[in-house]
Order: sequence, then structure tokens, then C-alpha cells
Amino acid sequence: MARNAAIHLGRRGLGALATGLAMAAQARAQSADPLPSWRPGPRKQALLDFVAAVTREGGPDFVPPPERVATFDNDGTLWVEQPAYTQLIFVLDRIRALAPRNPDWQQDPVFRAAIEGDIRGAVAGGSEGLLRLVGAAQAGQTPEAFQLIVSNWIGSARDARWNRRYDELVYQPMLEVLAYLRANGFITFIVSGGGVEFMRAFSERVYGVPPQQVVGTTMALKPGEQDGRIVLTRESHVDFIDDGPGKPVGIARFIGRRPVAAFGNSDGDYQMLRYTTEGAGRRFAMIVRHDDAEREYAYDRDSHIGRLDRAMNEAPGRGWQLISMKNDWARVFPG
Amino acid sequence: MARNAAIHLGRRGLGALATGLAMAAQARAQSADPLPSWRPGPRKQALLDFVAAVTREGGPDFVPPPERVATFDNDGTLWVEQPAYTQLIFVLDRIRALAPRNPDWQQDPVFRAAIEGDIRGAVAGGSEGLLRLVGAAQAGQTPEAFQLIVSNWIGSARDARWNRRYDELVYQPMLEVLAYLRANGFITFIVSGGGVEFMRAFSERVYGVPPQQVVGTTMALKPGEQDGRIVLTRESHVDFIDDGPGKPVGIARFIGRRPVAAFGNSDGDYQMLRYTTEGAGRRFAMIVRHDDAEREYAYDRDSHIGRLDRAMNEAPGRGWQLISMKNDWARVFPG
Repeated sequence: MARNAAIHLGRRGLGALATGLAMAAQARAQSADPLPSWRPGPRKQALLDFVAAVTREGGPDFVPPPERVATFDNDGTLWVEQPAYTQLIFVLDRIRALAPRNPDWQQDPVFRAAIEGDIRGAVAGGSEGLLRLVGAAQAGQTPEAFQLIVSNWIGSARDARWNRRYDELVYQPMLEVLAYLRANGFITFIVSGGGVEFMRAFSERVYGVPPQQVVGTTMALKPGEQDGRIVLTRESHVDFIDDGPGKPVGIARFIGRRPVAAFGNSDGDYQMLRYTTEGAGRRFAMIVRHDDAEREYAYDRDSHIGRLDRAMNEAPGRGWQLISMKNDWARVFPG
Repeated sequence: MARNAAIHLGRRGLGALATGLAMAAQARAQSADPLPSWRPGPRKQALLDFVAAVTREGGPDFVPPPERVATFDNDGTLWVEQPAYTQLIFVLDRIRALAPRNPDWQQDPVFRAAIEGDIRGAVAGGSEGLLRLVGAAQAGQTPEAFQLIVSNWIGSARDARWNRRYDELVYQPMLEVLAYLRANGFITFIVSGGGVEFMRAFSERVYGVPPQQVVGTTMALKPGEQDGRIVLTRESHVDFIDDGPGKPVGIARFIGRRPVAAFGNSDGDYQMLRYTTEGAGRRFAMIVRHDDAEREYAYDRDSHIGRLDRAMNEAPGRGWQLISMKNDWARVFPG
């Protein structure tokens, strides 16, 4: 049958056939082990079983491809969030870079701390002070110009502990989960407290997640005109916080469909995990627990960043998979 | 080569091969005429030329598939918007249905007009009155429950002039454009002043546009809990209006990428069309002009709904394709 059909294939048909063959090759490669950086065990198996169940046509748990929505938190789930959120480090670097043009910032203790690279001092002003820093560091440009600034920063800034770029401090096992789900017809979304335009500056290149599949915290955008062109300007106030109870709101607003699988690491993901697994039919939720001080960090209930307490307590009762970074991951970073 | 490769195909490989063959068949079918409901002429040719140019690998205008973002207005561009927006007819029907449970509405002239089916009286209260009707008709449910209400209404309500369901009053030539662009690697989005959850109730079935690719006006969502489950409730106030200058904002916010092609029909699309064609590289914009009173409606500069004035004046200078429904469309509706 394939041979007869091939006779009728035109130039575009051959392209489509090549696509088919490439997909076949991909399918073969994946039948080996789609998650090579995961150690065998019940958590890895739970994910494999879930995907097998929801993709089995005619099976009781089958989910049609358009409904295979999977959502991923970013900080602490896809990349490192210690000793401070990467976006906070970006904000402080940016405040330092802009300081010469803003001499009045020296009069403000929060800004002075930021300029001096004193993270503790910069966050001592609480969320009010932090929002002022975030506003000053991230406002005034078009979304495109801002993403270029972020992109350039990501290309040069380095984490102090590993001397690696921040986009190299992503978790290899989670990159494999993203690719594995997509290969099985899932649509992968990022749903994170991070700034949406900050994440869009690298999400496609690093995670394979295009901008329209990134849901995050947003700063207000003001439409205007400049030199005869429409220009959108990032204002200095946050108009939606995509964290905690905001995550189901962000999902409903941007995606419009309840996820069948969700991945998080902290209590900021608690509502997203619940919103996912409270849906009808088979669902899957996973929590990355940071218990590996040697290869990454160990923190949970008492951490100021990525606190994991309530979600961990309720994980067993809700059927959420609690991943041990130390035991379940054969490797942490790519390369 | 195809035969050798086929020997190695497993069960999933055969599925992929079948997909390849199906795509080849699709490609063959489309090489005939992807837009059979469009009469030959310069406007049809302009669209064909644009798609050929941006999909020609190695060509000067090539746009990689992830950047092939195309945005479509809904009311008046994909379906009929006269004699009143379909969503307004839904709102009035819903007010009537809820009236017995809300006897106090009889004291309010705007609500009384709505209950009596008097569209003129219902809109006489201006946008303030209209927003109260919209709030009363569309608030209080979860997004899922609201979409079910809309879906049931669409399944039963009928337009008075044609005695057809509203989802049958979509424009066949535009359905062909949606399919044609998708077949050429475009991602199609709806960007409309209509309510996002109203449109999501039928966009996937009718237009092939999944919920995450629908950008629209939003009502605030309030997160809460009920019977041990997370529940989002639609509040009665609108928190984002995706019309006019709001369209570029909605595009930047939800899509995160400037479209390369945009389709509209009124001055409410003016900013979206500009935002699209002011981008660098080859771009395409099209305006559906309603000049066919016999088969549909004829209206432009003086219409209260779908007013087309400034966008029409500037179309030639900006290189926007101004479509004549009467001359360019061989047929208007499907079936």
C-alpha cells in the first residue's frame, strides 16, 4: 500500500512522507527510554503509566490530543531558583546598570542596596520595595525591546556557584518530560509566577515552549503611538500575579482548558496541582522536591524561596507524585 | 529509500507513515484550489502570493513556522454581526430566561426592554446599561458552566432572517482561509472584542481554533473553594476589552508575538491591522467589506455595528487588501 501511494506523491507529498519517516524514527528512538535521566522507580513508572493510559485509543482513560494540556511551573521546577529567583538577579543587575542615569536612587535604601548588590538589603523592603525595584528595572520599553534586554542578559550573566549561564541551570530530567509529553501529543505550557515577557525571552529556545504557551505574571501594557507607529509600553505596575490562587485563574484565562497533568515544586503550585487533579478523568500531578544539597539545593518547609509545606503534606492523600531530586534523578543538569 | 525505511517501521512507525501519507493526500487536494469559494482576482491572488512568499524556504520573505501567526477578528470577519452582535442576542435571551428568578429587574427600564425583546430599548442605556446586562447575563458561573450555557444556546437559537443557527452563519470563504493558512504552517488565532469564554464555546468545533488560541474581552475571574474543590467564578465586571487599541495589547499579552497576517472588517480592527503590518518583513492584512445586501448585509461608514471608516480610508496607503463580499466571494455561507 505504501508503495502504490508513493507513486502518486508529488514534491510536497515527498516532504510529507519525509515527515512521516522522521516521526517514525523519533518513535523508534523513544521506544528505548524517553526519560534516560530518570532512575527507574515508582515515580518514573507513574508518569509512563499515565501517558500510556491517556494516549491509548479506545481505552477508559483516553484523552484526545487537543485536551492533552500539561502545565509546568518554571522556578524550581524547570530551572534553579536558589539562592534567589533568576528574575530577581536580573532585576538587581538591571538596577545597577540603570543607576548612573538615576542618581536619585541613591537616596532610597532599597535601591541603594540593589545597586550595591546586597540582595538581603534589597528584599528587606518587603514586597512593596520589591515591586518598586521590579517596576523600575522592567518598565518603559516595548515587550520586544524588553525581551531583547533579557535575552542579552541571559547570554552573559552567570550563576556564582556553577559559573554557568542561567539557561544552562535547567533540569535535564524535566526537559525530557517536556519532550516526552510533546512526542505523545501533549501541548506543554509554562504557568509560573515569573514575568511572562521575562520567560518568553528564552522559553522557546530552552524549553521548546512558544510564547503563546507561556502564562505568567504581567505588567500593564499601555498602547500608544510613536513616529507614526503603534507602540506598547510596559508600565511599572503588575496587573496580574500568576502565583498560588492566581495560577488556576491564569490557566482559565489564557489556556481556557483544565490541564490533565501539572508539574510544580512549591506551595505556589498548590492550587494549580489541585485544579488539575480535581478535574474529571485520569489526571497527573508531580512535585519536584529539592533534597539534593550536593548536586543542587535542599530546602522545603522553612525556605523563603520555593517553600514546600502544604503541598507536600497533602501529596499522598491527593495522589500527587513527590519526586526526590536526589533519588529519582540520575543527573540534574544538561551537558 | 522509502521502501528500505519502511522495513524498519514498527507499529508506531506505521502510524507515522500513515500520517505522512494523509498529509500528502491533503497537499495534493489543496494544490487544486485551496480557496474555492473565492472568485479569481487580485485580492485572492494577493493572499496566495503572500503565503507562497513566506513559506518559500530560502526565499527573501521566508517566515519560520513558529512565527507564522495569523489573527482573525470574529464578528463581521468570521461570522455575521448584523442586525446585532450574536453575543448581544445571547445576552438578551439569557436575561429573559433569568427574569422569572429576578423580579426586581422589571423596575429597571434597560432590563425591562431586554426582557421584552426590545433590542433598541436595551441598548438605549448606552454602554453603562449594556455592561449591566452583560454582567447579569454572564456572571456567577464557572467558565466551564458558562460555556455549556453558550453551547446549548448556540445549538438551539436561530437567526430570524435565515432561520439558521448562528454557527451556520459563518463565512465559508473565511473558513477556507483558516484551513489554508493552517495547512501552510500558520497558527490561527481569534482576536475579537467578543467575550473570550463565549467564543471558546464554539471556536474549536466551528473554526478549528482551540481555546488557547482565542483572545477576547474578559470578565474578572474570582478564585474560591466549594465542596472541597477549587472553583473559579465569573464576576460581573469586564476587566479587559479586546477591541480597538486593546487588540495589540491582547496580542502582546496572550500571543507574545506580532502577527504576520491579520483579518478584520471594521475600525475596531484598525489597530490590529496596523500593529501587524508595521512589523518588519513581509506582512498581510485584509478587510472584509460588507457590500452585499442581497446575500448578507451592506454597511460601512454609518453603521453602529462594525463601522468601517478610517480603516477603509487608509487601506490603500497601507497596502491592506479591501475585500468586496459581493465581488470576491463566490458564496457566503457553508452548506
